[in-house]
This record gives sequence, C-alpha cells and structure tokens, in this order.
Amino acid sequence: MSDAAIDAVDHAALKSADTETLRAAIRAGRYRRHTAGLATGRLQANLAIMPERVALDFFRYCQRNPKPCPLVGVTDTGDPRLLTLGSDLDIRTDAPAYDVFENGERVATVPDIRELWRDDLVGFAIGCSFTFEHALEEAGVAMRHVAMDATVPMFRTTLETVPAGPFGGGMVVSMRPIAERDLARTVEICRRYPLAHGAPVHVGDPAAIGIADVSAPDWGDPVPVRSGEVPVFWACGVTPQNAVRRARLPLFIAHSPGAMLVTDVDERAEVPVLDT
Amino acid sequence: MSDAAIDAVDHAALKSADTETLRAAIRAGRYRRHTAGLATGRLQANLAIMPERVALDFFRYCQRNPKPCPLVGVTDTGDPRLLTLGSDLDIRTDAPAYDVFENGERVATVPDIRELWRDDLVGFAIGCSFTFEHALEEAGVAMRHVAMDATVPMFRTTLETVPAGPFGGGMVVSMRPIAERDLARTVEICRRYPLAHGAPVHVGDPAAIGIADVSAPDWGDPVPVRSGEVPVFWACGVTPQNAVRRARLPLFIAHSPGAMLVTDVDERAEVPVLDT
Repeated sequence: MSDAAIDAVDHAALKSADTETLRAAIRAGRYRRHTAGLATGRLQANLAIMPERVALDFFRYCQRNPKPCPLVGVTDTGDPRLLTLGSDLDIRTDAPAYDVFENGERVATVPDIRELWRDDLVGFAIGCSFTFEHALEEAGVAMRHVAMDATVPMFRTTLETVPAGPFGGGMVVSMRPIAERDLARTVEICRRYPLAHGAPVHVGDPAAIGIADVSAPDWGDPVPVRSGEVPVFWACGVTPQNAVRRARLPLFIAHSPGAMLVTDVDERAEVPVLDT
Repeated sequence: MSDAAIDAVDHAALKSADTETLRAAIRAGRYRRHTAGLATGRLQANLAIMPERVALDFFRYCQRNPKPCPLVGVTDTGDPRLLTLGSDLDIRTDAPAYDVFENGERVATVPDIRELWRDDLVGFAIGCSFTFEHALEEAGVAMRHVAMDATVPMFRTTLETVPAGPFGGGMVVSMRPIAERDLARTVEICRRYPLAHGAPVHVGDPAAIGIADVSAPDWGDPVPVRSGEVPVFWACGVTPQNAVRRARLPLFIAHSPGAMLVTDVDERAEVPVLDT
C-alpha cells in the first residue's frame, strides 16, 4: 500500500483519542509520527528488539543501568506480545514507526516489522521521560521544549554505563532548564518514577559530565537556559539504543525516535504490570 | 574443618560490626545464622543461583513479578561477583548459609558453595523486606515479629504470579499486624521501596487471598493480630524460590532462610548500584 493510499490521521486528531482508538490507527498504518501528548496518562515505552542469543546480556545491561534503561516489559522469545503491558499489544505493529539496524547502521525506517519478525527475536520495553514530564507539569514545573514544540535536547556524556556482555559505552542524557526555586521538588517528584529514569543524574555545570556546549545537543533541538535557571540532566533512553548499536548486532530493531509504544498501563502505577 | 574447629561468633557480637567485619566473619565460615539487624542500613538480598540455560526465563519471571521478585543484581555467567552491589562480593561465600536443591528437593545446607560452583551458573540477588521494616520502625510503626524475636509469618495465597518459561505458581506473602491509624502511612512509606517488595499486596481479610487461618502460617512463626489492628500482607521473596523449586531444576542454590547476602549498597539508595 502506498503512502498516498493510507487514510492518514494527524497528531491533533488523535490528541483526545483513547488508547484503543490510537492503537488501532497506529496498527493500521494510519499514524506514523511521535506519541508525545497522546493517550495521556498511559505508560509509553522505548522498544529494543534483538536475537535471543544476546538477550540475557541485554537484560543484565538494563538491570545494571536502571536509570537510563528502566525495563518495563519483555516478550517471550519469538512471541510479539507484551502481556503484562496490554491485553492486545503486538510489538510488530503497535509503534508508529521502527528503525531497523544491521551491524549498528540504520538500514530502514518502516511502519511495521511483520515481515522482519523471526522466531528467535526478543522484545524489550523501556520506560520513557513522558511519564515524569507529565508529573512535573501537573506540579507546575513547565517543560520548555514542550512549550517550544521542540524535541528535548540530548547529549553524549563522560558518564560510563556498567557493561554486560557486548553492551556498554557512555550514558546519554536529556536536558531541561529548571528554575532554581523548583529544583528540590523536581528531584523529589522524579525520584518517585524509577520506571521513567528517576531523579536527575546531574544538576548544573554541563562540563562536569563532559558536555562542552549545552546549546549544541547531539540529538534533538537546542533549548535555552535562562537567568535564574539551572540545566538539569536526566538519564535518557537513547543510552541502551547506543549500547546496542555499538555491539553491531547483525539485526536490531528499535522504535523510531519519539514514536513510542503506547501501553495500557497507568503511568502512575506502582509496577508496570496490568491488574490480572 | 569441623564445626567445633570454627571460632564462631554470635549474632549479638556482630550487631555493631561494620559491613566489612561482618562479611569477613561470614566468608571465613565463622557466622552461619540470620542477618536481621546486622550491618544496619545496608541493602540485604535473597540469592537464587541456577544454570544459564534457564536464566533468561528467570529474568523474565522477575521482571513480570516485580513485587515478589525485585531484582537488585545479577552476575555474569560463571562469575561469582556482583560488582554493582559490592567491590568485593562473592556469592559463593558471602551468605552465612546456603540451601542446595536437586530436582526441587533440598539435598543439603552448606556454609559456602565453592565446591558446587560451575562455569554455567548465574546468580540473582533479590531485594528483601528488611529494608522497608527499618523504614517503618524509624517512622514509629512497630514490627511485632521483631519485638517477639520471631520470624515473620508467611503464607501461600491464591494470588497467581505471571509465568515465564518453567517458572510460575502462587504468590507467597508475609503478614505484619498494623494499627488501623498507621495503615495509610505504612502503605505510603512502603511504596517508596520498590526494591523491597513495595506497597502491600493486600490489606485485611485473609480469606480474600486464600488464607484460611492467619494464625497458622506456612513458614515462620505465628504473630497475633490484636484489637484495633489489621493484618497487612506483602509480596515475599519466598515466591521466586518456590517458583524455581516448582520448575524442578537439576541444580538450584539459594541462601538459607533469613541468612541473606549483605551488600555494600545503602538500603535507601535510589537504585541498587554502587557509585562508580
């Protein structure tokens, strides 16, 4: 089916849609863009899909690096369902877009991975920053990149992750400017969300974690830090993606940046498991 | 070396010892009993050691059942160190006693597992209730079983865990009587410790989760529930041990009940990873 033949819907049209409607549009290939602000209140997740051969080491990598890699779900080998995150969730079709990597290089971006699915694949779902951003906004701490309609700025750092098997490398962080008077409660609120990167990993001087120019991010858009504000840095879900690319697996599949898997789990749930 | 030849130390003598002194006594085989109240403030952990062949499924089981099975560490295959929990931590020697299971049946209790260690073994460390008990006691919520010098009562329930591979079965819970006036803050405090079983899984009527007689525990000692108190039930670390025994693995090794692995990590740390 060509793009032109798809009865596409846009972000604005889906803003008030419930999770089921949103998922149906995504599954049908009718929505292929970012999920920020959609299905508000539901846990969204990064996806990392790889052969079982390296899955135990990737599990270890996430366990040892819980701030950049907060695991919220994992499939059985060869089974595309994430039963603890949704009764009808299929990781082959339910993210709006997927990036496909071979030997660490992106070779394609596709709307679903039905034709790429294999019996030896394992899918991991990793928590994302949308959860704590909502919590901060509800507490009156504004997110400037949201107000700017921009992508949060992300940076490589000199903070090293704890390695496991072929996985390792530097931590990637996201930056949000926070008013000095809001710092303490920002940290306190975020600490309540261990499945969404938790408390910041660094507050203040960017150079202390190897960032030469806080106005020149490695990914995302520049966001200004104003007088009376401090740059605050959170562990970022790009970290595991970089770790996997660095391992140069023959095949690795991720969601496309910002186009997350929307789950049925309440983003404020104590644990990422549907009531059974 | 016979038991008589060991220059044994007792619990009282170790009560004020630091973590290093305690670990040295345990490693030398001089202390083989329970670790409640020792190395106060350090994270203690259940141990589950099994062949790599089933390690990916056990990882999945823990991820899907985070309240009974809060993972705090995992070794590389064949490597007895837990580097994220201590710079000098050896799971072959650093728990006071180990239970060895073959085909689901306990065949031995030993002071170390140096001679049983194999290149294909993987060790998992799982958080334990000591952490939230300390937090509750510091907040003035008394733990009756501690005051009685008894083992917390534990029960089989009709709550089912989410299965993974050969692992599954019912959830085991521990019970502590809590005064009605302390209920709300008990739940609120425990929710802050997701690595120590988190908030209770049930409050009140024992029959609702399949417990016929709350004065007759399946493990541990009976603890009375007095007038003005409610029985409160937490997910318990015996759950994964039962799940593994139920899988009838040819070899499975656990710490002996109550004789936990004492780590170097602060039990109030946001994540179970030593500062690097």
